[in-house]
Amino acid sequence: MSITLLEGFHVASTFEKWALIAIVVVALLGLLYAWFLTRQTLNEPEGNEKMRKIANAIRTGGNAYLKTQFRTIALLVVILAIFVFLTGWFAGGTSVYNNPPWLIGLARMGGFLMGALFSGLVGYIGMNMAMRANARVAEASRTSFIKALKIGYRAGTITGMLTDGLGLLGGTIIFILFFEDAPLVLLGFGFGGTLLALFMRVGGGIYTKAADVGADLVGKVEKGIPEDDPRNAAVIADQVGDNVGDCAGMAADIFESYEVTIVSAMILGLILTITTGQLYWIIFPLLVRAAGVFSSIISTYSVKSTGEGENAMNAIHRGYILAACISIVSFFLFAQFYCHDLRFFWATSIGIALAVVIQFLTDYYTSTEHKPVKEIAKSSKTGAATLLLSGIGYGYESTVMSVIVIALSIVGSAIVWGATDNVLYIFYGIALCGIGQLTLTGNNIAMDSFGPIADNANGIAEMTGMEPKARKILADLDAVGNTTKAVTKGIAIASAVLAAVALFAAFYEDYDLKTINLIQWKVFVAFLIGGGIPFLFSSLAIRAVGRAAFFIVNEVRWQFANIKGLWEGTAEPDYSKVVSICTAAAQKELLTPALLAIVSPIVIGFLFGLEALAGFLAAVILVGQLLAVFMSNTGGAYDNAKKTIEDGLYGGKGSDSHKAAVVGDTVGDPLKDTAGPALNPLIKVINLVSVIAASLMVVPIAGGGFREVGLTPVTITVIVVGLLIIVGAFWYSKKQESFAKEDDK
Amino acid sequence: MSITLLEGFHVASTFEKWALIAIVVVALLGLLYAWFLTRQTLNEPEGNEKMRKIANAIRTGGNAYLKTQFRTIALLVVILAIFVFLTGWFAGGTSVYNNPPWLIGLARMGGFLMGALFSGLVGYIGMNMAMRANARVAEASRTSFIKALKIGYRAGTITGMLTDGLGLLGGTIIFILFFEDAPLVLLGFGFGGTLLALFMRVGGGIYTKAADVGADLVGKVEKGIPEDDPRNAAVIADQVGDNVGDCAGMAADIFESYEVTIVSAMILGLILTITTGQLYWIIFPLLVRAAGVFSSIISTYSVKSTGEGENAMNAIHRGYILAACISIVSFFLFAQFYCHDLRFFWATSIGIALAVVIQFLTDYYTSTEHKPVKEIAKSSKTGAATLLLSGIGYGYESTVMSVIVIALSIVGSAIVWGATDNVLYIFYGIALCGIGQLTLTGNNIAMDSFGPIADNANGIAEMTGMEPKARKILADLDAVGNTTKAVTKGIAIASAVLAAVALFAAFYEDYDLKTINLIQWKVFVAFLIGGGIPFLFSSLAIRAVGRAAFFIVNEVRWQFANIKGLWEGTAEPDYSKVVSICTAAAQKELLTPALLAIVSPIVIGFLFGLEALAGFLAAVILVGQLLAVFMSNTGGAYDNAKKTIEDGLYGGKGSDSHKAAVVGDTVGDPLKDTAGPALNPLIKVINLVSVIAASLMVVPIAGGGFREVGLTPVTITVIVVGLLIIVGAFWYSKKQESFAKEDDK
Repeated sequence: MSITLLEGFHVASTFEKWALIAIVVVALLGLLYAWFLTRQTLNEPEGNEKMRKIANAIRTGGNAYLKTQFRTIALLVVILAIFVFLTGWFAGGTSVYNNPPWLIGLARMGGFLMGALFSGLVGYIGMNMAMRANARVAEASRTSFIKALKIGYRAGTITGMLTDGLGLLGGTIIFILFFEDAPLVLLGFGFGGTLLALFMRVGGGIYTKAADVGADLVGKVEKGIPEDDPRNAAVIADQVGDNVGDCAGMAADIFESYEVTIVSAMILGLILTITTGQLYWIIFPLLVRAAGVFSSIISTYSVKSTGEGENAMNAIHRGYILAACISIVSFFLFAQFYCHDLRFFWATSIGIALAVVIQFLTDYYTSTEHKPVKEIAKSSKTGAATLLLSGIGYGYESTVMSVIVIALSIVGSAIVWGATDNVLYIFYGIALCGIGQLTLTGNNIAMDSFGPIADNANGIAEMTGMEPKARKILADLDAVGNTTKAVTKGIAIASAVLAAVALFAAFYEDYDLKTINLIQWKVFVAFLIGGGIPFLFSSLAIRAVGRAAFFIVNEVRWQFANIKGLWEGTAEPDYSKVVSICTAAAQKELLTPALLAIVSPIVIGFLFGLEALAGFLAAVILVGQLLAVFMSNTGGAYDNAKKTIEDGLYGGKGSDSHKAAVVGDTVGDPLKDTAGPALNPLIKVINLVSVIAASLMVVPIAGGGFREVGLTPVTITVIVVGLLIIVGAFWYSKKQESFAKEDDK
Repeated sequence: MSITLLEGFHVASTFEKWALIAIVVVALLGLLYAWFLTRQTLNEPEGNEKMRKIANAIRTGGNAYLKTQFRTIALLVVILAIFVFLTGWFAGGTSVYNNPPWLIGLARMGGFLMGALFSGLVGYIGMNMAMRANARVAEASRTSFIKALKIGYRAGTITGMLTDGLGLLGGTIIFILFFEDAPLVLLGFGFGGTLLALFMRVGGGIYTKAADVGADLVGKVEKGIPEDDPRNAAVIADQVGDNVGDCAGMAADIFESYEVTIVSAMILGLILTITTGQLYWIIFPLLVRAAGVFSSIISTYSVKSTGEGENAMNAIHRGYILAACISIVSFFLFAQFYCHDLRFFWATSIGIALAVVIQFLTDYYTSTEHKPVKEIAKSSKTGAATLLLSGIGYGYESTVMSVIVIALSIVGSAIVWGATDNVLYIFYGIALCGIGQLTLTGNNIAMDSFGPIADNANGIAEMTGMEPKARKILADLDAVGNTTKAVTKGIAIASAVLAAVALFAAFYEDYDLKTINLIQWKVFVAFLIGGGIPFLFSSLAIRAVGRAAFFIVNEVRWQFANIKGLWEGTAEPDYSKVVSICTAAAQKELLTPALLAIVSPIVIGFLFGLEALAGFLAAVILVGQLLAVFMSNTGGAYDNAKKTIEDGLYGGKGSDSHKAAVVGDTVGDPLKDTAGPALNPLIKVINLVSVIAASLMVVPIAGGGFREVGLTPVTITVIVVGLLIIVGAFWYSKKQESFAKEDDK
């Protein structure tokens, strides 16, 4: 067996070779642009000493959290790297170029580590940029709205460009190196990215909401002091939480969505490449994404140069439309002149259409201008209970609409590909739909980043007692960010479903399943259990927030009762204590839900076989999507219902309606910021683990196809080792917890 | 073609002939016993004039509601009867005895009407018995606990015996008449029963919770007056609601569960009978059920004669255990000496085990003695929001446990039937599991009925100012009823899943599907949409309650503001006005969710074909089960968390904790009493409509098998007619609404 790298590359036409090189160059350009923007952002003034001090405290808290988190994950990543290596080794027999299995194992493991590294990096840098931008935005708000907006937008663009650049670079380099063996490696890359994203989402989500709920319950509800009042000991933890949840968690999550849509499209594309002998099935998605990066650079740069005064938002929207136009034109050009097949154009365009419709739906169910939020706010007149029920009613409805839209986009893809019964084409079309949908990720993240940054800037302004004019500007920025944040979340979840469906199809193809027959009892049993997973995961996440918030409430109450002069404002609370509690709690609560995602498909696969595992996956996708959208939209609607009341409706702040709305908002918070968005990486982790681990569950048989291993001594050993991993990780997490407690002293 | 009735009967062995006759006799005995108990109950004294007056007002309200409801349903039942006739006609070609298609059509239509009649009758009589027992229980509580308990138990036993008797009678008679053609007719019988149950559950659920929420919001929350205070104008409507929701709705629903488990077991059993030439596949489930009726008669009668003082509850439990023992022994005897196959015994015993485990789970998640409710109550210390979140967390968890238990019972069934891949045996085993699980329906309903009856008696006691000693007895009775009520609900939902799974298998067999392949895009699309249906249905139900409660709140407020002397207690409120509002609102809100259930499978089937329809059904079963248990248990846990606080925990009544718990209870009410339990008939209506309507979607081809019709002018016409039914029913419901308004003047 010889080692064969770059073998396939020689097969490509001259155009394709240059195209691949161009894609790498564009990806690098995106990263260069991010670096360039970073320099610019850091050159902005950071305000007076007081502001810098608070910003520093936030930064210290945020980085301490990520450090602890990465330390917690480290061992698990090492163990899983070995697992990934083994799966690659087992799958190595299917190498097209007869590469030795150990090479495939190593490559898949390398891909896994790269994916994890990239995902962690995007989260880390994204969060740090936000934490450097916050004081700068606050300072700029003293001058003008446009200046503050620019800094926030720019900081967001940095994260956007990192996401685009690293996602595209990783996928393309793996493809160039391994060509037809690339799927084997790409799975590792995808898994690494989603795994980190899952950790960052869950950990960040628990942190941010525990701090938020804890701060609000004592501050706003019990003591009646405003949000971000410096006497509240949880106020810095709350600010840190915005960063670790809405920045680090969100950035890693979107990176992962971006990456997995590429991975799934490439895997299905490569099967079609082998079938048809045409390389464009795999190069087209990369080209489209490169065009997306390119258009993001142009459009975000153009925003920087135009717009004065309050018209800046229009400039940003113009930039978005410009990017969309460039992208659609590029879809057409590549489809027509490279693939000579307009179906590629239609499939990716459906993705853009899906993004637009999801945006509209999210906006309808969560923004203050439409019926649902208005009705929810109105029902506050009869108290918290009716408000909550109204929100649940609309939330249920919204998730149905969303699932119908996704179903329609699958129908659209089927129509484009000739409504044939050939599974592969249709699911490749669905993958392209996901590619199209996330083309403008750079712009989306740039717009999305206002939320947490403005929130932080607002907090700094409150704590340093900044002038009302600047506060007004920051509040406006925050409102802009809230809308874009909800939209990004909606798009991310829809893309999760498309990517997961494509992976589901890849699973079916890779392991040569003849059917996924729901009437087989094993399939049906696995299907029932699969439906339970998203509920169990959400239950763990929500209760984790509750438990952590309980500790914080007690700590803040204790400080109010025991620190002399705190209430009068002559003494300072011990902010770092609350930060430590949040960090420790998030670590402690993180592992159970994450391990559920990793272990459940492995156990199901070994117990009931591959076909049942596929049934399990389908149920996870369905129920995960339904729950995720329900929780995100319901939470968003409660948030905005509260906002409309705070703007003066039904008695405004302090009224009974407002109190009812605050209850709604507090219930909605962990739904929309912890459990809901974390289902997005969950769905994909479970799908990827299944595709990866399945190679351990089958033996290739001569003449093609597979035989399932079933429950043999070897597989039982694998299950036992899996369980040992859980126990080990639990033990490790407990140890981390005691570390965190020591740090705290 | 000759008309062939009773043809098959001659095939049966002498033992089987006598067995069938014995089953009919036992069913009739059950009905006779019900009539006997009715006479006894009506002989009890109904208390003084004031009590009789209130009881009369409740009775008038309840019957006016049912009258309006039956009028609303009437047209729809007529239209659907025609539809059922047509489907029978189309399916008639598969008659084993070459009966003419019109006969099959007529018979199926007759079955449909009989099912609807029986279901309506059980609901009507069950409710009326409760409404006659309420004042009698209140009066008896002046004497002793045991006497009050006896009357309640006896009234419940009447409903239980009706359920058993009519369910068994209908199924057996259809079988005797049509033998191997019986499945064609049984489908109609099942559909009629579930359809009425769906209407009664949804309508009753909306009524009861709108009245309850409305009464509480103004009474308890705004005015701070106790529950059932006679100055509250919604107080009679609230009492009526307990009857139409918890009695009529519940009785019709349990009847339907009982009936559909028989129907699905018989349908699968008949296929096996044809395959194996053995009649016991079909006679065994009937025998088991007859034994259940017999043991219910003996055990409930034994309760009547034993027990003195407060030991009465033990007597009831002893009765239950007695019934369980008789049943299990009968399972064994029939399996061993009639079928000569102990697998029958094991399969039905798994059903009993399932009932026990579900009972344990429901108890764990909703009763005051275990961790979940304790934790939920504890989190009230930090306000309503944390209480609600804690409840959602545990509710999510509970539904996962429940789905896992159901999955395990399927695994158990598979193991019993040799873990073969023969779908039919395993799913027949699942159907037997459902048979076993509901064997003790008579006893369950007898125990379940305390809740609403005691609630009503309590209300009458409050309004007539009865002495504290009697009140205490009624409160204790109510507490007993709350536990049994939650358990019955849990068992009903689990049985719904088993019955639906069996119907799902029947669908697969009847239409000769080769596979239900999830990877087919049509199947996957239908599957996604199917998952949305329970959410949409629940959304409609919850929002309906919110809307209706809003009107009631306004009316009660208006009466307080405008009726002179009402607050001082010198004037009476206009109770009947609120009763009319509830009746009209429930009618108005009833049809959309019910039509969703009927129309969605027809549209999916015609658009995407039978295989896709099966995918749709699987998703409805899965998501329906998950949502139903989540909502029922969460609501139950909130209710009991409130109770523990009212019993003195965390400050007791009037404390902030209590206020938080009241919010939780109010949110939980429509979840546990409207949306959650209504998903039970919903799942089965959708499954039955699919099996029935599928005969319109296929054409039998010579030599066996079917060809799907697809979208032809005929099928498009069918869809259009379906849509017209919706519009027509809407129009009719609007008209009913105006009737109700006129009634109101």
